[in-house]
Amino acid sequence: MTDQRQSLLLKERPTGMPSAKNFTLATDAIPAPGAGEVLTRTLYLSIDPYMRGRLSDRKSYAPSVQIGEVMTGETVGEVLASNDPGFVPGDILVGPRGWSTHIVSKAEGLTKLTGTLAPLSTYLGVLGMPGVTAYYGMSDIGQPKAGETVLISAASGAVGSVAGQLAKRAGCRVVGVAGGPDKCLYVQEQLGFDACVDHHAGDLDAQIADACPKGVDVYFENVGGAVQEAAFKALNFFSRVIMCGMVAQYNDTEFRPGPNLGFVVAKRVKIQGLIVFDKPERYGEWRALAAPWILDGSFRYRETIVDGLENAPEALSLVLSGGNFGKMVVKVA
Amino acid sequence: MTDQRQSLLLKERPTGMPSAKNFTLATDAIPAPGAGEVLTRTLYLSIDPYMRGRLSDRKSYAPSVQIGEVMTGETVGEVLASNDPGFVPGDILVGPRGWSTHIVSKAEGLTKLTGTLAPLSTYLGVLGMPGVTAYYGMSDIGQPKAGETVLISAASGAVGSVAGQLAKRAGCRVVGVAGGPDKCLYVQEQLGFDACVDHHAGDLDAQIADACPKGVDVYFENVGGAVQEAAFKALNFFSRVIMCGMVAQYNDTEFRPGPNLGFVVAKRVKIQGLIVFDKPERYGEWRALAAPWILDGSFRYRETIVDGLENAPEALSLVLSGGNFGKMVVKVA
Repeated sequence: MTDQRQSLLLKERPTGMPSAKNFTLATDAIPAPGAGEVLTRTLYLSIDPYMRGRLSDRKSYAPSVQIGEVMTGETVGEVLASNDPGFVPGDILVGPRGWSTHIVSKAEGLTKLTGTLAPLSTYLGVLGMPGVTAYYGMSDIGQPKAGETVLISAASGAVGSVAGQLAKRAGCRVVGVAGGPDKCLYVQEQLGFDACVDHHAGDLDAQIADACPKGVDVYFENVGGAVQEAAFKALNFFSRVIMCGMVAQYNDTEFRPGPNLGFVVAKRVKIQGLIVFDKPERYGEWRALAAPWILDGSFRYRETIVDGLENAPEALSLVLSGGNFGKMVVKVA
Repeated sequence: MTDQRQSLLLKERPTGMPSAKNFTLATDAIPAPGAGEVLTRTLYLSIDPYMRGRLSDRKSYAPSVQIGEVMTGETVGEVLASNDPGFVPGDILVGPRGWSTHIVSKAEGLTKLTGTLAPLSTYLGVLGMPGVTAYYGMSDIGQPKAGETVLISAASGAVGSVAGQLAKRAGCRVVGVAGGPDKCLYVQEQLGFDACVDHHAGDLDAQIADACPKGVDVYFENVGGAVQEAAFKALNFFSRVIMCGMVAQYNDTEFRPGPNLGFVVAKRVKIQGLIVFDKPERYGEWRALAAPWILDGSFRYRETIVDGLENAPEALSLVLSGGNFGKMVVKVA
């Protein structure tokens, strides 16, 4: 433990793809925790597509990060000092923190990890926000039934990989959409999907029709754009669309038009958005359910771990361009 | 009772707006009912926007009417002869029948009207398919809560007028969208909506913002097009959109693009289509609930009644162009 910490502050709002030049790497003294506060050192930092929204001043569901502020993000940290009775030095916790090597925050909103722990990075991925997102979306909106066909975009990603494995456990035919043969191979061979459509390989309509001969009953939407357009064409009567994200357009300065919604009436489709922060109670529920699956190896996940806080902006840009593979995590210490 | 009947057969598929020239008025002998069949004379014939889809060979949720076939449609009829034990001459029934003065059909699917009857035409409107549509959409998808704001397009129409009155009974602020000052006045003064936006009067965004200062929690979609675009902009977080119809585009040969769906994620919107034919069990439930409200005058409705089967095509064209006022019914006998 040194007396100094490093943080990444937002220097300017990116236009299009964010990069390191939009951030300032700042050094200051590690602050002492006040009453009811906890000081942690950051072990892992989560990198997620939603972060693009925080860099924009476009009105959204959560406040933007302001110029000069520390970039927001979930972390796994180790407690160094605590003025809250719930935490003692050495505790491992997860919570919404920020892009900094050391963080002081209120104990409220922090979750202590206890029991037999899975690898710590998984609490940001398969057992963290993306995993809970997939679980909540599938259980509350998608509600896949045995024998149905479930289509998952960004299938090798942190959310998609969980959503698809849950649909397999529900007895569905599960088809992924991913970018490139490596990801598609992973989706089929490691995650156990029945098929995977490569959106770099052209003719999405035909590929999806081939992979989903009985149409699509549940579509888990992570990307938007051309994949959404093709997926929507394949929707069955009474199908459900879980609108989780549209990463394909997060860097767009103007949003392209969407689908004419006549099919929603004719096919009685349900299209519903979700943001996992609405359901904090689902985190513990999901961790209790899935941690044993991670520990016994029956539930698969993949991570890209980047070393060093200073590489967080580059990691975010990879996530936004599909250049990552699986859950993106920055190892800070 | 003569020995002859008249029927309107589809002569050719309309391009754009349908008209009388797309139909043939044919005369033939009134057929006798076979085993398990019922012969009725048609009293009232329902005219509804969905009928445009039946005239098209575009794939839809229900089969198209074929060239040379009698046009489909709901009717109220009086039994003239019956070979089914459930019906005797003089019974009044409602069911999916067709554009004909006399109809022979299987007893299955016909509903005998019993008890103290409301005016017979209402069983095609406020107490019929449009009323059940509004009831099902509001109760199952919209689920308006007291204090919420509910926006209803085609508010003076057969579906919208019921949807809005149900939302008022649920304790909501209810705002209609209708075409022209007469319809808007009716929506406010007769149906009791809190406000009505005139979509002929321009600047829909500003009009909706004025009428819905707290945004829109439930939007009942009957029209699509520019009204949909403006309504979607006003949607609140966790709002629900009941996708009932998009009459503004039923005559389009190509469908215009729709909204970019990013807002569905950010605002956790639910957009869900419904078609009332999926829920035949709701018809009886709705009639039992609402018939007393019609009889005691506490629930308002308006009908345009056109005389003569031969005028059904013109009546349909009025419905599709918004030229009607309230539920459109053809008085056949």
